[in-house]
Amino acid sequence: MLEDRLRNVRANTPLVHNITNYVTVNDVANAILAIGASPIMSDEPEDVEDITSICGGLNINIGTLNKNSIEGMRRAGRRANELGHVVLLDPVGAGASRLRTETAASLMDELELTAVRGNVSELKALATGSTTTQGVDANEADAVTDENLDQMVEFAKSYAKTAGCIIAITGAIDLVADSEKCYVIRNGRKEMSSITGTGCQLSGVMTAYLVANPDNRLEAAAAAVCAMGLAGEIGWSHMQEGDGNSTYRNRIIDALYNMTPETLKEGAKFEVR
Amino acid sequence: MLEDRLRNVRANTPLVHNITNYVTVNDVANAILAIGASPIMSDEPEDVEDITSICGGLNINIGTLNKNSIEGMRRAGRRANELGHVVLLDPVGAGASRLRTETAASLMDELELTAVRGNVSELKALATGSTTTQGVDANEADAVTDENLDQMVEFAKSYAKTAGCIIAITGAIDLVADSEKCYVIRNGRKEMSSITGTGCQLSGVMTAYLVANPDNRLEAAAAAVCAMGLAGEIGWSHMQEGDGNSTYRNRIIDALYNMTPETLKEGAKFEVR
Amino acid sequence: MLEDRLRNVRANTPLVHNITNYVTVNDVANAILAIGASPIMSDEPEDVEDITSICGGLNINIGTLNKNSIEGMRRAGRRANELGHVVLLDPVGAGASRLRTETAASLMDELELTAVRGNVSELKALATGSTTTQGVDANEADAVTDENLDQMVEFAKSYAKTAGCIIAITGAIDLVADSEKCYVIRNGRKEMSSITGTGCQLSGVMTAYLVANPDNRLEAAAAAVCAMGLAGEIGWSHMQEGDGNSTYRNRIIDALYNMTPETLKEGAKFEVR
Repeated sequence: MLEDRLRNVRANTPLVHNITNYVTVNDVANAILAIGASPIMSDEPEDVEDITSICGGLNINIGTLNKNSIEGMRRAGRRANELGHVVLLDPVGAGASRLRTETAASLMDELELTAVRGNVSELKALATGSTTTQGVDANEADAVTDENLDQMVEFAKSYAKTAGCIIAITGAIDLVADSEKCYVIRNGRKEMSSITGTGCQLSGVMTAYLVANPDNRLEAAAAAVCAMGLAGEIGWSHMQEGDGNSTYRNRIIDALYNMTPETLKEGAKFEVR
Repeated sequence: MLEDRLRNVRANTPLVHNITNYVTVNDVANAILAIGASPIMSDEPEDVEDITSICGGLNINIGTLNKNSIEGMRRAGRRANELGHVVLLDPVGAGASRLRTETAASLMDELELTAVRGNVSELKALATGSTTTQGVDANEADAVTDENLDQMVEFAKSYAKTAGCIIAITGAIDLVADSEKCYVIRNGRKEMSSITGTGCQLSGVMTAYLVANPDNRLEAAAAAVCAMGLAGEIGWSHMQEGDGNSTYRNRIIDALYNMTPETLKEGAKFEVR
Repeated sequence: MLEDRLRNVRANTPLVHNITNYVTVNDVANAILAIGASPIMSDEPEDVEDITSICGGLNINIGTLNKNSIEGMRRAGRRANELGHVVLLDPVGAGASRLRTETAASLMDELELTAVRGNVSELKALATGSTTTQGVDANEADAVTDENLDQMVEFAKSYAKTAGCIIAITGAIDLVADSEKCYVIRNGRKEMSSITGTGCQLSGVMTAYLVANPDNRLEAAAAAVCAMGLAGEIGWSHMQEGDGNSTYRNRIIDALYNMTPETLKEGAKFEVR
């Protein structure tokens, strides 16, 4: 049950080590706190092994990668693997530059990942070598739609099998798959794309859900996606005359903060394929 | 017409590459999204050439420069020049440290800039070698006032001629000039200086306006300044009892989000000299 | 009188140089602006000496330290010492990694600090070599309580004596001590820990208070702690149905912005031991 996945986050207060971009890092930290988990940020190669050791999971986001932080990602990832921790990769901008594509690909090769979460263009770039990514946003031509849904579910499952981890493709329709099973999720609002960082927040939140639910990882990842989308819906319902994307940003994190397991249960819109 | 400059931003969704400081980067991203454009951040030298290639414009802000990002600024700038892209420089703190003054000056030498936007002390430091900058704020003694307006308009035009690009000097009275023509703009509120980053946001927003309006660049830069100042006025009108600078920050970005071409047309306060 | 410490901040607009983490840096800047002071951020070793020279105080926060910024902290600290400036250290995560503990300890050795502000686990790690820090949060077992208050007041005074500077230990009960005298402060709300960065904001704010009150430093540090806690109380009183930690973040900075010396005088809850 999805609601139990949230219950476990609130009960266990997982500590999440984030190596993430400096654009959305504050929102990632507050989103992780909002769900009842605890964030720590560290990217210096000489610091990350100690830090990741005291955490339950590692969230690697390459949104503003640099040479030093890439080395930090490697070292933290290896140590997290040695310790059997959750490791999530958010390949921001894969397909948009060679450095991003290669860094994401080599982290997927070298590390044992629990999940990869990105938009459809990023995931296609990694799976197929296509380079349709437009900056950090998905290319509309790639979008998951009702028309191509069967095919995209197949893609998600098959890439999950190849990659050996959960694949979460988020957009208007979200797909969260392992090699056998795919959650098709229809929470969220299109206005969420007018805010920077809802994807980055989701990656941090999903890492916490994965840590808190070791026996139900696919469901935990799906629950995180439903919760984030639902927070977007609830946050929007609180918008007033004159409010815009900056207030919406606050409203979404506020909705994560106030979300109860019951709210999540009632609001989650998904099917399993 | 200023309102057409905004129409073109919303119609064209320009993609803006930002190499900007980590203090205000989130607000810069949300401000760019608010006006209907799209931001991407990247400062690693090995990443910036690919990233700037898929964008329409480059916004270079030296607010928290370091050795690595300075090299990123150079490489991104050169590539953007090769591709004929818009390049804007925001020389944060020029005059306050040797590294900032020299970095800004050398970027102006090496690159073909479309515009430079800063406060009056920063621009004077670059134009005349004066060092009256107080931290990242303008020195009051430098302020553009009704008393020195003729002289400052002349300074703006003459520096635009020397520098070979648009010069935007923002403060209580804003000046946006090329060598021939100067917009004198009186939008905005003094309370905007109680928030970090309205200048940085304007630089990102102005880059998007410049990209979307290749045939009307001076007017586009002026429209961006009017829009930001007007957002400050509209945002303030939504402030309630107990609100302060943090809520005001959100209100300004919200006002950018909700601004229509008609609102901009009616609210812009400027004369051309 | 505590209220005079705030009056002096508003009257003198101290300029504070911050070498701080990229997670909470925007909130630190807006909090410093909210109290009527002025922030500047710079961490590049070749930039920091010039920048710190034009400031009144230096706030060093090791929350996302890296090799380059550590060198920046050293150089800025030495220059600030030569100039007799206020230097405050916020040892984020000391006890959680070797690099953090050693960096904090060596900065304490090499520099003449005005104050160290951290949570109880960080301060214990530095004073006693214990490593109970849980990520960037204090370990509950370390908490200052009514039961161990006498003993913790003694610890704060004795560590202030050893370290030769003001020691500020913040949590549910805050202690601000020099070797002779300890303020025991009971402002604040537990919900402040659901926001990232209230501690970092306090360090920036405290640096400004210390700069503006050269003749009353211990009282200035205590006033800053009372003001931050009181802002947490006032901010909470403005919370409405549906608000969460993101809105609370804004409300706290708003409360700093609107705080008058009279509000601080009436709201401060402290005793001196």
